[in-house]
Amino acid sequence: MKELVMGFLGCGNVGGGVWKLLQGYADELDCRQHLTIRVKKVLVRSLNKQRSCDVPREILTDNPDDVLLDPEITLVAEFMGGEHPATEYMLKALENGKTVVTANKVALALNWHLLQAAAEKSGVGLYYEASVGGAIPIIGALTQSLQANRISSIMGIINGTTNYILSRMTENGEDYQAVLADAQKLGLAEPDPTSDVEGMDAAYKLSIMASLAFHTRVTYDKVYREGITKVTAADIAWGRKMGYVVKLLAVAKQEGNKVEVRVHPAFLPKEHPLAGVNGSFNAVYLYGHACKEMMLQGRGAGDMPTASAIVGDILQAVKAEGHYPYPTFANTAEPDPATVFDDNWTAKYFVRLSAADGTDALSYVAACFAKAHIAIEGMTQETAHGQAQMMLVTGEAKEQAVQSALSSLDPSLCTVENLIRIEA
Amino acid sequence: MKELVMGFLGCGNVGGGVWKLLQGYADELDCRQHLTIRVKKVLVRSLNKQRSCDVPREILTDNPDDVLLDPEITLVAEFMGGEHPATEYMLKALENGKTVVTANKVALALNWHLLQAAAEKSGVGLYYEASVGGAIPIIGALTQSLQANRISSIMGIINGTTNYILSRMTENGEDYQAVLADAQKLGLAEPDPTSDVEGMDAAYKLSIMASLAFHTRVTYDKVYREGITKVTAADIAWGRKMGYVVKLLAVAKQEGNKVEVRVHPAFLPKEHPLAGVNGSFNAVYLYGHACKEMMLQGRGAGDMPTASAIVGDILQAVKAEGHYPYPTFANTAEPDPATVFDDNWTAKYFVRLSAADGTDALSYVAACFAKAHIAIEGMTQETAHGQAQMMLVTGEAKEQAVQSALSSLDPSLCTVENLIRIEA
Repeated sequence: MKELVMGFLGCGNVGGGVWKLLQGYADELDCRQHLTIRVKKVLVRSLNKQRSCDVPREILTDNPDDVLLDPEITLVAEFMGGEHPATEYMLKALENGKTVVTANKVALALNWHLLQAAAEKSGVGLYYEASVGGAIPIIGALTQSLQANRISSIMGIINGTTNYILSRMTENGEDYQAVLADAQKLGLAEPDPTSDVEGMDAAYKLSIMASLAFHTRVTYDKVYREGITKVTAADIAWGRKMGYVVKLLAVAKQEGNKVEVRVHPAFLPKEHPLAGVNGSFNAVYLYGHACKEMMLQGRGAGDMPTASAIVGDILQAVKAEGHYPYPTFANTAEPDPATVFDDNWTAKYFVRLSAADGTDALSYVAACFAKAHIAIEGMTQETAHGQAQMMLVTGEAKEQAVQSALSSLDPSLCTVENLIRIEA
Repeated sequence: MKELVMGFLGCGNVGGGVWKLLQGYADELDCRQHLTIRVKKVLVRSLNKQRSCDVPREILTDNPDDVLLDPEITLVAEFMGGEHPATEYMLKALENGKTVVTANKVALALNWHLLQAAAEKSGVGLYYEASVGGAIPIIGALTQSLQANRISSIMGIINGTTNYILSRMTENGEDYQAVLADAQKLGLAEPDPTSDVEGMDAAYKLSIMASLAFHTRVTYDKVYREGITKVTAADIAWGRKMGYVVKLLAVAKQEGNKVEVRVHPAFLPKEHPLAGVNGSFNAVYLYGHACKEMMLQGRGAGDMPTASAIVGDILQAVKAEGHYPYPTFANTAEPDPATVFDDNWTAKYFVRLSAADGTDALSYVAACFAKAHIAIEGMTQETAHGQAQMMLVTGEAKEQAVQSALSSLDPSLCTVENLIRIEA
């Protein structure tokens, strides 16, 4: 019988899930893998807080060194979240020869090079399946089963909060603010929802996935980012009429040494496999030169789905006789200088404009786009209360050309209300 | 620089794909993983056959021992298919200390215990990601990322040929025979399509997945199997009216020590994630107690998608310092006696019956079902050319109760044309 002695950094929602999963799983581990897992110490901020899981009071500690320096502890699982002090704690654990399993996309995306260097130096493992997509085995797929592929494209719905909000706006025609308030009440959005609704959370995750898929460090600061706060019920309704569904999409593409990475609201044709991924579900759709189209879909958050990925990592770490070779790209803080980050990507564009009724804004806008050599595939106009609303959909066009055409429009003739990229 | 010297068993469609993938990938392997892969010998049936890939004539051999006994060869990849002689060749390779990577669902499902015993004895690896679902990383997910889950249900579309046929029948209202003939012309169905259309192929794959998911040997002979040959355009049209889509479904469920495994045509509500998986795509939808709902979808066949899984396995085998612990359940030829295989499963049922016009068959059938305590959720009837067609949908019912109610019907009053189970 093998025994793993481990420590927790944090014991909130996810930590509680891991505790529950380990407890309920003990018998099966015992008889199937001849393994017992003992959680020796659990770092918490407050020793006296009420917890949803039944971690015994005597293994709680508020001193990180009780976990990080205990020589009996060989594996540390981190679910504190945030860059600091999680990064420092994980570094200390790794330096002290402990394998680290983490769900922390922020610390990993920002400090991958530091964490990996410490892991390599100690010859221990660094596992992070739970950092992207909750229970979805996307890290395992990218690093193992799909590793023979040259992956050219990833499109992900990797933030459950925004997907819940957009799904409800789509289903019920509700407004953003109303749904957000409700999501906050239901615990599906944070009291400060910025990281979710402004796309930071998705951008951290995209940085990790794109790095693994493209074998080059795609740092967080290279990810173009636009949140969902400007998406209106009107945009969604117009999109629907044209056969589109709106999603907060994380997109990464690679062609030769050119990489584009971006998080923004996007319209998808309603037949697209990602278009049906609703509510708090996550999904990653990718294309590899050998595997072709592939989609992984599941629960992207929540205590038990995240615990599923963490305990999977713990068991892999225990089984591994030698830890997997560390990806070499992650050794640097900066992207490979040979990688060119392209922010002039190609898409179709949905543009909503308003103008005073009676003006000939439609022909004016059409002329501006024609001058910029941007094809217009569809245009429609509606007038109400002395105000004209125009929707237009371009053909495939370059980001910069579209932005420059829109900024050339005379604001006294029409106002750009919103722009949503269309992916396929 | 590390060098892997390997041999191929077979060089047909899949073998050619692996060859092409390895050739096109050599530079990246070189610079990223400091690894060269040399294919030293390729076993073929005919040395002079024209091949789609450019394997050099001098490495072809028709003597299996050139691959199986060469001490320089440390890894053998098998894509001959079929139980014999693939099983014997793999056993010989394993006994001679060579790691085996296989795409062979038949040999694995039927002889897992022999293959694993040989692998364990030699301390080498046995890898089989390509045996189920082509490029879809379902084996990796079940054995690694999702291993902390108690999986209660798997539903898979894991045969591309039948999914292509049923998708076309659904889209165009075509008849089975016509689509099959066309699929054969297009190379999407074998000249002898039995293994696909009668569900054997799906049953082998289900046997493998269910064994891994439930940690018990689920042998092929325990899988209930019913093919798609009886599905008619009329069934599909009636299903569509009721909001259902037909699929050849592989279903495995576990509750306590009770396991059910079955492959048969099934109706799915059109909103079900599997209902949109069309053409030659495969998908596996599962439920685990921690991960909750999960779906993996991708190319289930074809030279390059299958090669994606095989080369992924080869690279994992090379990286592994110790091969993963072998699943203990696979050590026996027979299922664990504690496992109870339940063939009296619960589902809803779609039943199509015909009767001579003017007879009161509808009330007769309704009475028979009522007598058997089977609720009827919907019933509809259509009369044409002196013949009445009845469709009925039951509530949740037991398989044996439904079968016995149907066999109690007087054939002079009505004929059971088809029965299709409804899953949700």
